[in-house]
Amino acid sequence: MEKDSAVSWNFQGSNKVKESSTHSIARVVVEVMKNVTAGEKFIHLGIGDPSTIPCFRTAVAAEDAIIQALRTNTFNGYSPTSGLPLARSSIAEYLSRDLPDKLSADDIYLSVGARQAIEVVLTVLARPGANILLPRPWYPLYEAFVAFTGVEARHFDLLPEKGWEVDLNAIKNLADENTIAMVIINPGNPCGTVFTYEHLKNIAETAEKLGILVMSDESYGHLAYGSTPFTPMGVFGSVAPVITIGSLSKRWFVPGWRLGWIAISDPTCILQGSEIVEGIKSNIDISSDPTTFTQGAVPQILEKTDAEFYSKTTSILKEDAEICWDLLNHIPCIACPHKPNGAMFVMVKLDISQLEDISDDMDFCNMLAKEESVIVLPGFILGMKNWLRITFAQEPSVLKDGLGRMKAFCSRHGKKK
Amino acid sequence: MEKDSAVSWNFQGSNKVKESSTHSIARVVVEVMKNVTAGEKFIHLGIGDPSTIPCFRTAVAAEDAIIQALRTNTFNGYSPTSGLPLARSSIAEYLSRDLPDKLSADDIYLSVGARQAIEVVLTVLARPGANILLPRPWYPLYEAFVAFTGVEARHFDLLPEKGWEVDLNAIKNLADENTIAMVIINPGNPCGTVFTYEHLKNIAETAEKLGILVMSDESYGHLAYGSTPFTPMGVFGSVAPVITIGSLSKRWFVPGWRLGWIAISDPTCILQGSEIVEGIKSNIDISSDPTTFTQGAVPQILEKTDAEFYSKTTSILKEDAEICWDLLNHIPCIACPHKPNGAMFVMVKLDISQLEDISDDMDFCNMLAKEESVIVLPGFILGMKNWLRITFAQEPSVLKDGLGRMKAFCSRHGKKK
Repeated sequence: MEKDSAVSWNFQGSNKVKESSTHSIARVVVEVMKNVTAGEKFIHLGIGDPSTIPCFRTAVAAEDAIIQALRTNTFNGYSPTSGLPLARSSIAEYLSRDLPDKLSADDIYLSVGARQAIEVVLTVLARPGANILLPRPWYPLYEAFVAFTGVEARHFDLLPEKGWEVDLNAIKNLADENTIAMVIINPGNPCGTVFTYEHLKNIAETAEKLGILVMSDESYGHLAYGSTPFTPMGVFGSVAPVITIGSLSKRWFVPGWRLGWIAISDPTCILQGSEIVEGIKSNIDISSDPTTFTQGAVPQILEKTDAEFYSKTTSILKEDAEICWDLLNHIPCIACPHKPNGAMFVMVKLDISQLEDISDDMDFCNMLAKEESVIVLPGFILGMKNWLRITFAQEPSVLKDGLGRMKAFCSRHGKKK
Repeated sequence: MEKDSAVSWNFQGSNKVKESSTHSIARVVVEVMKNVTAGEKFIHLGIGDPSTIPCFRTAVAAEDAIIQALRTNTFNGYSPTSGLPLARSSIAEYLSRDLPDKLSADDIYLSVGARQAIEVVLTVLARPGANILLPRPWYPLYEAFVAFTGVEARHFDLLPEKGWEVDLNAIKNLADENTIAMVIINPGNPCGTVFTYEHLKNIAETAEKLGILVMSDESYGHLAYGSTPFTPMGVFGSVAPVITIGSLSKRWFVPGWRLGWIAISDPTCILQGSEIVEGIKSNIDISSDPTTFTQGAVPQILEKTDAEFYSKTTSILKEDAEICWDLLNHIPCIACPHKPNGAMFVMVKLDISQLEDISDDMDFCNMLAKEESVIVLPGFILGMKNWLRITFAQEPSVLKDGLGRMKAFCSRHGKKK
């Protein structure tokens, strides 16, 4: 029913919101999935959420912890805005196991998943005129929030030929006196890389020289299964202040639980004077909080999840990474510059010139979905036109099937020599 | 350890965040509570969260629904950004019971509690130069988000002598061509009022004349226990577009579950052309989502909670409201203009001139906390200097005790005639 238009209505939406939402993996994946024939069983290598795949089912101890917390009837109310003290202190203890300078509960702020943690920190950093250094390939959420807050984004490259390490020379050229921070994601989304201790040290020293802080997104923390062990950036908090983003989502395979955190590694108290920490507290004060009973379950989740769960899941990811490396290197139009050793992603480059009737990465993904019911993410949404991100957290047999179909697809569409 | 200051650090926090956070009930309550002698058992009449009070324990069916959803292992992953379709459609059905124009799942957007719903809507409405009409007494969260988005706030009074109804004449004088919306909270926080069908109709007609939409915060929906039944504003969606905010938090006494929603009542499709709905979708796309297994539990929570739970809890609130009315009217320095018939609050006016050594509402609250271990909220944070908001959702015997202590306190500090 159309309303009589005699009334003149004043309202209209804000453009700022609209612009931000163009940076959405979910939107692109929905587009790609529209190509899958209805009813067809598809293989999803598109997003980092293997929570429904049986081999990645979360630890029973973690589920039990939630139920116990709920049944106590003490965690149905509001939590303090920074989070329940018992959850903050158990996360501080958990993170401190790998840090020379121990964190206290006061250094931890709980968030609705890593997503809200990123939003809060970027909002606080966004003073007028400031700029922030972001990696390319990027994680679109950073682009979305940076666009929203109005702070200027400047991009440095991750170098595929150097195992996707940060191009530190580029950083020095990009930064000026209005640069406030640089962002790293380690283990890497979308590159599946784990930065070495040495490289992280170099990053911290570069940040110190430039007078900027390091925002280290460690959502995939501990998902490292190659020869490089996971080192948290907070190890170098005494070189330059570090704000770490973390969550239960990836290590426990429960992104739907929406429990993340911000951790402040600032043993030399640089951030105090800058009002960054006060700003985080203020922003957290007005933001929504994670579910209270999930907060209440955190100590038990961190204490009771057994080592076997971690080793089983990372060894499947390692097997998956090997499968990717073996199979992708046998697809002619695809180049895989780096064998993933962390997180659950690999970035590969498409050689469009070798394909007959495919114009770009989005076209590739749409047709692959249509013809083979395999979903992968086009690189353009990560700032890498004609690349693909493949999420390999799958039952190994399903992954082999999916990559096999991709190979068949590429053969079929390859230019005849 | 202080760091060597040779490095010049570039970063500092954003002032916008800091300003917003001054509008925080939680911060004021924390201040007031500092006055309670450590170890003393206090009576909390300060915030709308009775979740730990035995008589307001949530429905067992609701707890069971969460546990069942969790145990299926199908709700550990990300949800679609607007929410799980099954949850959206069950909320549409739930709200439609009271509406002439039925809502569909597409009219519902899930949020991390009502708080995030408010944030999303205000962010979308906040185009440069716009203004929005807010009630006074106010709910500080609106002030915080409005300050943050930079939209101009203009306040209309709720009239205590008219049962806290909206001053519709004031609305007409406040609005201009840049006014986009007016906000009502019904049942009322902080006034404990339930607007009549007739008054809501007048509000809708006023909004239509002014060309603005109505944002109706119905977080306390159905908590009505006087002679005025609860009418959702959406009933008048065909007069002026209505965006309704709702949540599980208050009717189920589970504010820690963080499950809220935005419902669009716009049967004449006015909002479509304005891009408001598109804006809400976009903002929801980049925001954090409510816990997926809680979303998965929504259909069962809405279907299986029995009528007895609702009637038991509202009858306790009714008894509590009567207790307030009886006891508060016998405290000389306090005036209670309206007997609450909804939500869980009553606003009372302090006559400071009758008190010996108390300077204002904050002073009153601090000293009451110190001397009697009773917490109430000073009115200044609600835009009402020298008023108090009393949250009466308590075991009736505890409420009597608390108000009795308040009476003793007022007698002790009353001016000797």
